[in-house]
Amino acid sequence: MSTPTESPTANADGTTSSRSTAASPDVDVSGREESTEFDQATRELLVDGLRRTLDGRWRATRDSVRERANRSDLLPDPSRTLDEARARVLEEMRELSSQGFAAAGFASDHGGTGDVGASITAIEMLGYADLSLMVKAGVQWGLFGGAVENLGTQRHHDRYVSDIISLDLLGCFAMTETGHGSNVQALETTATYDPQTQEFVIDSPTPSARKDYIGGAAQHARVAAVFAQLITAGPGQEPESHGVHCFVVPIRDDNGDDLPGVTTSDCGYKGGLAGVDNGRILFDHVRIPAENLLNRYADVDADGTYRSHIENPNRRFFTMLGTLIRGRVSVAATAGAAGRKALALATKYGTVRKQFEAPGADDEITVLDYLGHQRKLLPLIAKSYAMTCTQNELVAELHEVQSAAPDDSDAGRQRQLESSAAGLKAYATWHASHAINVSREACGGAGYLDENQLSIMRGDIDVFTTFEGDNTVLTQLVAKELLSAYADDVQGLSAGGWVRFIAGMARDVVVEKTAARQVIQTLLESSDEDTEKSTLTDRGTQIRLFRNREDHLVRTCAQRLRRATDDDNDAFEVFNNAQDHLLKVGRVHTERVVLESFIEAINDCDSKAAAELLGKVCDLFVYSALEDDLAWFLMHRHVSVERAKAIRRGVNELCRELRPYADVLVDAFGIPENLMVAPMIENG
Amino acid sequence: MSTPTESPTANADGTTSSRSTAASPDVDVSGREESTEFDQATRELLVDGLRRTLDGRWRATRDSVRERANRSDLLPDPSRTLDEARARVLEEMRELSSQGFAAAGFASDHGGTGDVGASITAIEMLGYADLSLMVKAGVQWGLFGGAVENLGTQRHHDRYVSDIISLDLLGCFAMTETGHGSNVQALETTATYDPQTQEFVIDSPTPSARKDYIGGAAQHARVAAVFAQLITAGPGQEPESHGVHCFVVPIRDDNGDDLPGVTTSDCGYKGGLAGVDNGRILFDHVRIPAENLLNRYADVDADGTYRSHIENPNRRFFTMLGTLIRGRVSVAATAGAAGRKALALATKYGTVRKQFEAPGADDEITVLDYLGHQRKLLPLIAKSYAMTCTQNELVAELHEVQSAAPDDSDAGRQRQLESSAAGLKAYATWHASHAINVSREACGGAGYLDENQLSIMRGDIDVFTTFEGDNTVLTQLVAKELLSAYADDVQGLSAGGWVRFIAGMARDVVVEKTAARQVIQTLLESSDEDTEKSTLTDRGTQIRLFRNREDHLVRTCAQRLRRATDDDNDAFEVFNNAQDHLLKVGRVHTERVVLESFIEAINDCDSKAAAELLGKVCDLFVYSALEDDLAWFLMHRHVSVERAKAIRRGVNELCRELRPYADVLVDAFGIPENLMVAPMIENG
Repeated sequence: MSTPTESPTANADGTTSSRSTAASPDVDVSGREESTEFDQATRELLVDGLRRTLDGRWRATRDSVRERANRSDLLPDPSRTLDEARARVLEEMRELSSQGFAAAGFASDHGGTGDVGASITAIEMLGYADLSLMVKAGVQWGLFGGAVENLGTQRHHDRYVSDIISLDLLGCFAMTETGHGSNVQALETTATYDPQTQEFVIDSPTPSARKDYIGGAAQHARVAAVFAQLITAGPGQEPESHGVHCFVVPIRDDNGDDLPGVTTSDCGYKGGLAGVDNGRILFDHVRIPAENLLNRYADVDADGTYRSHIENPNRRFFTMLGTLIRGRVSVAATAGAAGRKALALATKYGTVRKQFEAPGADDEITVLDYLGHQRKLLPLIAKSYAMTCTQNELVAELHEVQSAAPDDSDAGRQRQLESSAAGLKAYATWHASHAINVSREACGGAGYLDENQLSIMRGDIDVFTTFEGDNTVLTQLVAKELLSAYADDVQGLSAGGWVRFIAGMARDVVVEKTAARQVIQTLLESSDEDTEKSTLTDRGTQIRLFRNREDHLVRTCAQRLRRATDDDNDAFEVFNNAQDHLLKVGRVHTERVVLESFIEAINDCDSKAAAELLGKVCDLFVYSALEDDLAWFLMHRHVSVERAKAIRRGVNELCRELRPYADVLVDAFGIPENLMVAPMIENG
Repeated sequence: MSTPTESPTANADGTTSSRSTAASPDVDVSGREESTEFDQATRELLVDGLRRTLDGRWRATRDSVRERANRSDLLPDPSRTLDEARARVLEEMRELSSQGFAAAGFASDHGGTGDVGASITAIEMLGYADLSLMVKAGVQWGLFGGAVENLGTQRHHDRYVSDIISLDLLGCFAMTETGHGSNVQALETTATYDPQTQEFVIDSPTPSARKDYIGGAAQHARVAAVFAQLITAGPGQEPESHGVHCFVVPIRDDNGDDLPGVTTSDCGYKGGLAGVDNGRILFDHVRIPAENLLNRYADVDADGTYRSHIENPNRRFFTMLGTLIRGRVSVAATAGAAGRKALALATKYGTVRKQFEAPGADDEITVLDYLGHQRKLLPLIAKSYAMTCTQNELVAELHEVQSAAPDDSDAGRQRQLESSAAGLKAYATWHASHAINVSREACGGAGYLDENQLSIMRGDIDVFTTFEGDNTVLTQLVAKELLSAYADDVQGLSAGGWVRFIAGMARDVVVEKTAARQVIQTLLESSDEDTEKSTLTDRGTQIRLFRNREDHLVRTCAQRLRRATDDDNDAFEVFNNAQDHLLKVGRVHTERVVLESFIEAINDCDSKAAAELLGKVCDLFVYSALEDDLAWFLMHRHVSVERAKAIRRGVNELCRELRPYADVLVDAFGIPENLMVAPMIENG
């Protein structure tokens, strides 16, 4: 494939045509008519090469799940009642467990096999089958199991981990309350230490303290990892709250009945995820033994003295939360998988569905041959490619950080990781939700029938933008971290407090680009600093445009925020007036990271043909990202009017060039055949 | 309320603040703190004034439905099985019918009361209760009943209409086939006339000829209005197809069993609309009496001779289709209602939900006080206001056209009406789908629980972008009609054929603006031709910007299309290369119409306070529409960089100014209290 130019096959008059571009010897990009006619061997070569790039480091795990999950009976069945759907997912979890699915998520000396990356990758792959199964598995092994694993100590590991893996102990993760979702520090549930009995008393003092939306709480969970304000008094002192900590609290007996003082209820029907039994929990002075405090980061002596090796309560809280990052990373990963599957279904349908008279033929036009249809699907496929590479990188980084010996962890690295996870979770779940929506609509009435899966996926994915961190809050978090350069002690500040911190910072904010990548550096160095001077298909120029946008937004946002004074109201107003700016900082930062990791993954691709095709995909990702934000680039003169027009034309052109590969691109996702069941694809 | 300037409360340094703006004597816009503190009397005055504008000409119908539908038992109940949900909706329809709900849709000499506008308005109001009910009622009385009413003649009216109104005859509308949805002219079902028996033989010759997604076909319908290719031979001639016509075909007996030759099946579970029994129908040489042809526009003599007073088969087909426009208008109307309800629910929640520390207070911040949250909801509310006014106008126009004496109809007016209906249907249903999605997400986890309605509405609305015309196809249709200046005989042309027509047009395309409105003309005349010279809150300038955009796009699109030659392939390529341009023409045209009808409605508003508030809402609609398309305005130099920045700031500023009225704005929708049930609003 030739290196593309500004608008590779533009005619002299500025229009574009579908003339084929020269391609590498083994792959020829052809026009509409021959769209699927390159030979089978070439096709397989391409699919293989692409898949290796997309599969990343844990490709063996992917292949193993692919093999085991290639069963259409894993797909959600809308004819099940709520009870049946929930029972079925639990049954599927038992199967997974018996196949050793869950062990990777736990350290080998706790009874697991200790492969964090494999564990998240396996969870992600469930997204190709049933999002309810992924969520319920994620709650049990990732959130509940993760809390015990990461916040507990040996006494908890010994007692719980093997039962968690085997499902002999079903748990839930009781963090969110009716009154508090995003603001976890303000949870109202209390855990008050009673030195007389050496117990904690768990209580919901107000209606809004009710634990809410908790997966597993409606029916199956026997035990909850409860987040509550730890209140204790040292000898001779007044009781004092030490912030939110996590406690293992039994909630049901072996018959599934609520234990004394515990009142569970059912969230009932939801927009999707029928197989997940979300529920509520109220505690009325429930007593648990002191040892049920997950005490890795803090503990209470028998006499009530509170101890923690992390002095600062904010830092302590965020350190504890930080260890739970796996859930957020899994959600991002799975959203990625769901988005890919939806795009694959819609693309397959788009290559068989025909509508309206074709020129000079008896047949009708294949809908994916319409530019309008290509524009719906292909840029989203490109974005999915880019994001998958970023996701793989994030999982690898998480694996490294969490596999390091305890206390060998680098606080800065952990902080960066959390920010990347937050950013990608928001970016990936919004993308997935949008991609599934567009895919449904691109399949017309057929897309609305549950038999073709998209409508079920649409309902299931919806809440991914909300749980494991509301996307808006997470995007803002990314921006705040960037702007305060990951400074200590800004976590937990109120909006106003944080703005005052920024206003007080002596130096200019300089965006530190995560882990300098050699390949990016080289590309940057070989590109012209004046982006208008080089062609838009030049990688270095692409990176510069994304970096310049981010730097510009960070700098100007910091300038706005500096106007804050010490006045509380004023500081909040300054923050609030800049909130849209701040949210944009978070989004463009993540998008820049996504681009750079995609470029690095392409660089690592070992198939020449696949790498060249990936290059086109990367171009489409860049062109459509620029198109989506063109007003900003124009307004801030990072792109000229002429270039802006070339970007629009370029998206069309790239869609046309990639059209013949649409099928190849989605086959490379490697979605098990029996999970791609959709009568519409047979019927056309 | 003062006339707003470019950025009404901008500070000298270009930032904005929440300083209050001077308001009219009876209404005072206040800052965040006093957000809901204007007095009750003022509030009621505003709500009343706004509601009168939104309710439009058929406000009596709205009030009557409001009263009758103010029952929470009308809301969809997710715990029902498919059968139960379907049965319940049918039961509700029987109630409606017994209250005389359906009579307005039929002419008084057919047994109805002949008030088209009231009929559509009543259907729309069902959108506040249950979208399944609206759809099923729409199928029975609007689509099936409408086909009999508008395509039939006295023999059909006498025989069917009163039973359709009373539900003694349940029907379905069997147009779409598995193989053809958008391209109705290519339907494969045949109706072959047999002069021996004076019958038509209805047949599905291929699997793709199967009628699909047909509401009512799975269970309840006894009769179908079947669209099929009419084939007949005059005496001594070869059989010939005369295109698609509509036939009344019995499909089930009184026990609900398929009649001989008919095979129905069930589309099963869908993404929503659980109460609608969508199904499929296959015909195997089913014989119906000749009189079952709905013969208003064409008939077959006993000997097989085909007769129609419309010579041109294309014009005949589109004339028949055109009479069925009521369905499309009802879908647009109902989508509008659903969008308003979702925004009302999310807004109510946004005013009670608090999260994160408030400056210098024990309490937390109300989420709607965050700029980010305002930016999610308020521009969508503004768009809902604008669209509601356009919708009311469209219904009135439809009422006039369809109430005119037969053959007194103006073909041009009908054609304009169809185009407006197509454009608004796409615009309104995309808006509703987006608004419900955003509303769900703005309510976090609570939004995902069916008890709070949004997740159910999300599933139900999804297919509105697809049925009654795929939105992309409709948007394109609007553009094609505009570009060919509603020329005769372009309907039914292939893409390539249409482009060749455009290429052959002698004169420049001039966009004829529908029914010159005096108020718009006056505003235009009093505004500066150079839009950059006048303030952006000037109505005339706003109209100019929207008009200039449309004119520019139409002109340049026509120029591109002129390049087509007589070569079939080339003509299609020219069309396809310009498809994104064409789709944009359709969208911006509708948006211009929406703006102008909103301005006219504000002009007609009889409450000064309400009109002033509506003015702000109109500004927000305009500013956010400009913001959404800012890249285009900048690229084509219709807006300067400085103005573009002012537009961004203006959206923020208007959000802040309208924040105190958020509650008032949604109360004015007049959604019956018992349909606004949502525990999240109680819980906060």
